[in-house]
Amino acid sequence: MNAADLRLPVDVPSTALFTDRYELTMLQGALRSGTAHRRSVFEVFTRRLPEGRRYGVVAGTGRVLDAVENFRFDSGVLDFLADRKIVDEATLDWLAGYRFRGDIWGYPEGEVYFPGSPVMRVEGTFAEAVLLETVILSILNHDSAVAAAASRMSVAAGERPLIEMGARRTHELAAVAAARAAFVGGFTSTSDLAAGFRYNIPTVGTSAHAFTLLHDSERDAFRAQVDSLGEGTTLLVDTYDVAEAVAMAVEIAGPGLGAVRIDSGDLLLLAHRVRRQLDELGARDTKIIVTSDLDEYAIASLAAAPVDAYGVGTQLVTGSGHPTCSMVYKLVARADEDGADAPLRPVAKKSMGGKASVGGRKWAARRLDAYGVAEAEVVGTGEVPAELVERQLLVPLVRGGETVAREPLSAARDRHAAARAALPMSATQLSRGEPVLPTEHP
Amino acid sequence: MNAADLRLPVDVPSTALFTDRYELTMLQGALRSGTAHRRSVFEVFTRRLPEGRRYGVVAGTGRVLDAVENFRFDSGVLDFLADRKIVDEATLDWLAGYRFRGDIWGYPEGEVYFPGSPVMRVEGTFAEAVLLETVILSILNHDSAVAAAASRMSVAAGERPLIEMGARRTHELAAVAAARAAFVGGFTSTSDLAAGFRYNIPTVGTSAHAFTLLHDSERDAFRAQVDSLGEGTTLLVDTYDVAEAVAMAVEIAGPGLGAVRIDSGDLLLLAHRVRRQLDELGARDTKIIVTSDLDEYAIASLAAAPVDAYGVGTQLVTGSGHPTCSMVYKLVARADEDGADAPLRPVAKKSMGGKASVGGRKWAARRLDAYGVAEAEVVGTGEVPAELVERQLLVPLVRGGETVAREPLSAARDRHAAARAALPMSATQLSRGEPVLPTEHP
Repeated sequence: MNAADLRLPVDVPSTALFTDRYELTMLQGALRSGTAHRRSVFEVFTRRLPEGRRYGVVAGTGRVLDAVENFRFDSGVLDFLADRKIVDEATLDWLAGYRFRGDIWGYPEGEVYFPGSPVMRVEGTFAEAVLLETVILSILNHDSAVAAAASRMSVAAGERPLIEMGARRTHELAAVAAARAAFVGGFTSTSDLAAGFRYNIPTVGTSAHAFTLLHDSERDAFRAQVDSLGEGTTLLVDTYDVAEAVAMAVEIAGPGLGAVRIDSGDLLLLAHRVRRQLDELGARDTKIIVTSDLDEYAIASLAAAPVDAYGVGTQLVTGSGHPTCSMVYKLVARADEDGADAPLRPVAKKSMGGKASVGGRKWAARRLDAYGVAEAEVVGTGEVPAELVERQLLVPLVRGGETVAREPLSAARDRHAAARAALPMSATQLSRGEPVLPTEHP
Repeated sequence: MNAADLRLPVDVPSTALFTDRYELTMLQGALRSGTAHRRSVFEVFTRRLPEGRRYGVVAGTGRVLDAVENFRFDSGVLDFLADRKIVDEATLDWLAGYRFRGDIWGYPEGEVYFPGSPVMRVEGTFAEAVLLETVILSILNHDSAVAAAASRMSVAAGERPLIEMGARRTHELAAVAAARAAFVGGFTSTSDLAAGFRYNIPTVGTSAHAFTLLHDSERDAFRAQVDSLGEGTTLLVDTYDVAEAVAMAVEIAGPGLGAVRIDSGDLLLLAHRVRRQLDELGARDTKIIVTSDLDEYAIASLAAAPVDAYGVGTQLVTGSGHPTCSMVYKLVARADEDGADAPLRPVAKKSMGGKASVGGRKWAARRLDAYGVAEAEVVGTGEVPAELVERQLLVPLVRGGETVAREPLSAARDRHAAARAALPMSATQLSRGEPVLPTEHP
């Protein structure tokens, strides 16, 4: 897949170096000891949700599929590995032909998860599966953290649109992924042009204080903006005096003015005042957009205020206090010998310091109560109980190295809304609490 | 500059879309109103440090220079902007010829900063400077946050090496930038191969629990690793029983075993026990590396333990509680008319909700006391007082569009160590406190 297919602002010739060095040295050791081709199962899960959170949101799945497809060791990469003596010749030869040919299952993107949920399962030889650890975790840990924050904000915002505008607060490419994850979590649009380019997310934005300050007067700036962008534009009204600016905005654009934006001060108070003023001026359809260090709690506190849309930056892209999930990628089963049919043996690190794993290749299902509301996340090994067969959560994503689960981003967004709606009502409380579903290991 | 020159694992044909949409709509408005070519000065600064932090660390400057050089609107980008009707034809024409031709000054990379420090200053026409807001802030906000955490960890670690291993906890490309920023802040090496490839940072890493679990016994795994990587390797000893593993490790590798790694449990207790055991086994030079959810406080708590190196992941790449800085990019001065010689007028948003700016093009200097210790960050407009001329902090980075301040990453790392050493001693206390220097506006 080339850059044009990916519609990336940044070409990704290979994702193979988004890898911790130990994955390659383990590969070398396993090739040498003859264990590299044992069939192996790795699972991605988290032992806990961030403190106080009631559910997690799987995001980044589509990006994992891109990353796996582009995980190739081209000559530039191989030269680097040889030059720095990172692995030996035999390993370099093996890497030159690398392509993931195994299977990947996972919770579909947008689905919710709980402690112990096997959100992704990678099956193949040890050699081919061990190499994907870092890039899969990078993507899922980052994107799921942002999506979880976005989901809480979208609960708080109700039907009002949410604009993602955090690019300036995070790494420039993390920003693109964050805009994508925010969309999955329920956001409506983004300020980030790269996210519009790459993922076709609607982009918005009109002006900053600099535009007002550039002109000889606020009046000149408003007139310039309306001349250029039309009366439907959004005028930023808090550079000097808000009331004066609102009056001037309606005078210049007319009562058809699209919106005003307030980016500082007491947003609750200002929203009420500005709404009253706009209504008195006849600009009843002019919307009010607020944007100033918002998080889910600030959004909720404005629920009764006459606000039409929220722009959210810092707290979104930093996961509202939890910028990463604690997902891990663990070997849970492997064969004793080579071959696709060799039986699997569960394996697990011994418990110490809370880092124990549950061995064995797992299934997961969400059990519903008599009213159709989710009541437990059931995670087991072996046979799936008959009553849960239809409620299984893992779906095939890659089969024999071929991606089988491409979907438009809107499908993940819709899935998230549906999955969240099927949780017990307490899931959407913003207050700290326990995971809203218990995880059962039958 | 092409990908090969950048030595990027990811090609960057253009950084022009790492931009919030409003920068382009402001450009369109300004082109239309005739103000686009007024000489303008934008400054990057922060109003406060993260709560309790005593100093900030400038990082990402070198990446900003890459981003500015690669900020071009190629046909793919222009087609996107036209197709989505983001800007009008006149603006597209102007963008097609875009190249930043102004000047950029800044605190050199690795320097420390305080509230109000003008860490970067961009001068040019409004049109050319306004477009760089988002990409500059993305880079500096992310990289400086990681470098600040790294600096605190390196204070806590003293002379012991610090290994960056957080790639799996953050976006896959943020990880590369994080490894770079960590190096500036005092880290020694990284697990991230892309960071080694792109920035020539030393990479390290040997094996995970999966390698032990893959083999039929821990003994088989250790033997495989030593066979493949030599006795100087690092064996992971906490998959099952630590004491048994240490005994086996020395038995297999001999007393020349490079190191053992402990990744779980009570690190303080285990480090002492393992050191005693290694010494009793004659492996006096075998090092102990610890890696388990470390932050600066955990590192400090191990200062008296027989630990030889620390591996740090999550808390490093998430800025140890502060994953972003609050740097902003503000228009502080602009001319009333076109032309390079038009006099500048200070401009600033009116104070409301703590978002006031200080207008005017600024200089900054660090005043020393009689003993050569820094005692104040002095930030002013107009003439620089004679006694501070030699203590100025801003250096030229770009002149007339040409980068003039390329340097090896080690220069930034050395500069940071020197700048931190020149601060009052309380700078390196890990406890919460006020900024260690006051910012004065004479």
